[in-house]
Amino acid sequence: MPDLTAAARRQKVHRTPIWLMRQAGRYLPEYRELRAHHDFLTMARTPELAAQVTVQPLRRFDLDGAIVFADILLPLDPMGLGLSFEAGEGPHIAKAVETPQDLARLREVDVASDLGFVAEAVRIVKSQLPPEVPVIGFAGAPFTLASYAVEGGPSRDYRRLKRFMWHHPQAFADLLGRLASLTIEYLTLQVAAGAGMVQLFDSWVGALSERDYRRLVLPHTKRILAAVKDLGVPSIHFAPLASAYLATLKEAGGDVIALDWRPDIGEVRRALGPGVAVQGNLDPLLLREGPVREIEAAALEIVGRGGVFPGHIFNLGHGIDKDTPLEHVAALIEAVHRAPSPGGIARL
Amino acid sequence: MPDLTAAARRQKVHRTPIWLMRQAGRYLPEYRELRAHHDFLTMARTPELAAQVTVQPLRRFDLDGAIVFADILLPLDPMGLGLSFEAGEGPHIAKAVETPQDLARLREVDVASDLGFVAEAVRIVKSQLPPEVPVIGFAGAPFTLASYAVEGGPSRDYRRLKRFMWHHPQAFADLLGRLASLTIEYLTLQVAAGAGMVQLFDSWVGALSERDYRRLVLPHTKRILAAVKDLGVPSIHFAPLASAYLATLKEAGGDVIALDWRPDIGEVRRALGPGVAVQGNLDPLLLREGPVREIEAAALEIVGRGGVFPGHIFNLGHGIDKDTPLEHVAALIEAVHRAPSPGGIARL
Repeated sequence: MPDLTAAARRQKVHRTPIWLMRQAGRYLPEYRELRAHHDFLTMARTPELAAQVTVQPLRRFDLDGAIVFADILLPLDPMGLGLSFEAGEGPHIAKAVETPQDLARLREVDVASDLGFVAEAVRIVKSQLPPEVPVIGFAGAPFTLASYAVEGGPSRDYRRLKRFMWHHPQAFADLLGRLASLTIEYLTLQVAAGAGMVQLFDSWVGALSERDYRRLVLPHTKRILAAVKDLGVPSIHFAPLASAYLATLKEAGGDVIALDWRPDIGEVRRALGPGVAVQGNLDPLLLREGPVREIEAAALEIVGRGGVFPGHIFNLGHGIDKDTPLEHVAALIEAVHRAPSPGGIARL
Repeated sequence: MPDLTAAARRQKVHRTPIWLMRQAGRYLPEYRELRAHHDFLTMARTPELAAQVTVQPLRRFDLDGAIVFADILLPLDPMGLGLSFEAGEGPHIAKAVETPQDLARLREVDVASDLGFVAEAVRIVKSQLPPEVPVIGFAGAPFTLASYAVEGGPSRDYRRLKRFMWHHPQAFADLLGRLASLTIEYLTLQVAAGAGMVQLFDSWVGALSERDYRRLVLPHTKRILAAVKDLGVPSIHFAPLASAYLATLKEAGGDVIALDWRPDIGEVRRALGPGVAVQGNLDPLLLREGPVREIEAAALEIVGRGGVFPGHIFNLGHGIDKDTPLEHVAALIEAVHRAPSPGGIARL
């Protein structure tokens, strides 16, 4: 079994596995070169291009997994919400959901035909990589997808979405339920195409209180993660800031809880116990800014504390910054692979 | 003893005390009326105006404490950093610290003369309020002050500050040490003038990892909170997002740990134990957006879970939003005062 999958299943590994959120992205010159000729959505929707970008970081670095190049918002477009990416502005939703009545105009997505290009990219990547490097599929979680659907784009405080949630709880539940069903089909498609594990990105759910998360979001996350379990691949649940309510996140049922860079991973593992694996948690800004000796010291400490028992996947606490120097990335990967993990490494 | 001070000292109270961060502020029409005639810094620096604004919310609402009208950045101006507030832009530091060499040009602050206007405002407020309503003094914590000093204003990711911290750890320690000494003198001045408790605002420290917080910030916070203990008044330590490392925050030594709106206050009290009080933790956006029945339900749950043993002060998880309806505030205060607190209320 690849180290990445083994760690997710809380088994001992040869070395602590590492991958980086957004590792197929703008910090790579070969990505920027390709991107100069194609816009972002074209790249995501063209399987050959998406596959090419997915393997770019693997050609350069000794990474333990390949996350398919795509975007969490891709499923919103076939729902009829009108997705575009403005240069320098981030994603834009042209037909945002403003009232409960707007839910009626959302279209049913036919995942296989509307999002089949992602499955095709997974298939190509899988054929190009050795079996010890799994392909990681992914999807946005319902709250985070709903934040774009209702806010129309990125938001500072999620005011419209929260207002919708508090004033129209039934419509909010309907919206999240639809997004959860779609997400299950979408992840099923990626696993069928060869993804060996999946990550659920609930990137903005940390805006919620534990009370609201538990009542209004957790049931949907739980349903998705249970469905992934039935697919037979491990799941990673990324919900930065929501480690403020770690015990509730654990209830959602992912095999791996992915942390942002704030918590001490040793404390988290102690709190969660050996029954769940943990991913994280270097500050992406430290990787960007350095110095290298500081990156290495932090990596050493994270591996030492995260590996108190089996089940630690190394990653950043958020996506890699586009201005991160390549030599910092190389130094980090080497430091992680060489760092002693007190409970996680098998003597072979 | 006033309920607010009693709760901070983990004694039983008549009813759960409540105050609101930024309660003397723009959501009040009488504040906006006064503000139309004076700019922000003039109001903060004129003791009669600052005192008038401080008591405005107390005339309207049954609040349990009065936080003096001031700004955490006021001490940066006499240091020679050049503080101004641009309309709609927030604070601006004209002469930001860019290199370790810049520390040499920082001026020693004579707290009594440079910031005596805050003490005078505290004295006036204290003379106007009944003894059961304590005056709350406050100051910014070293990391948060340093974030403005180095970034020059608000920041999304504190890149310059973190870079300074990682590349120049000794200069960073010097800067935080100077800010800590100044903060101790400033809080001592406010307590001497009659402040019955103080809050230390480390509003942006939650950008740090536990590892960086522990190594580079905690010693300074600890020194300030120990000095406040010697003054004989309780301290509240507000460090939103840093509840990701609650056990480390507890080591800083405040009598009360103030939470943002994310964590479940019941879990936090269980984790911290009965030896420390907790403040919080309603989502300020819920108070703004309503509906009132939802505000009341959340308040009831927070008081019930926060009051599992003595030592709960009700507050928002962040400052009150300027567009919050007055009737929402009134409904919240009434709900908190009426809510049953299982362990916190004395039968009299």
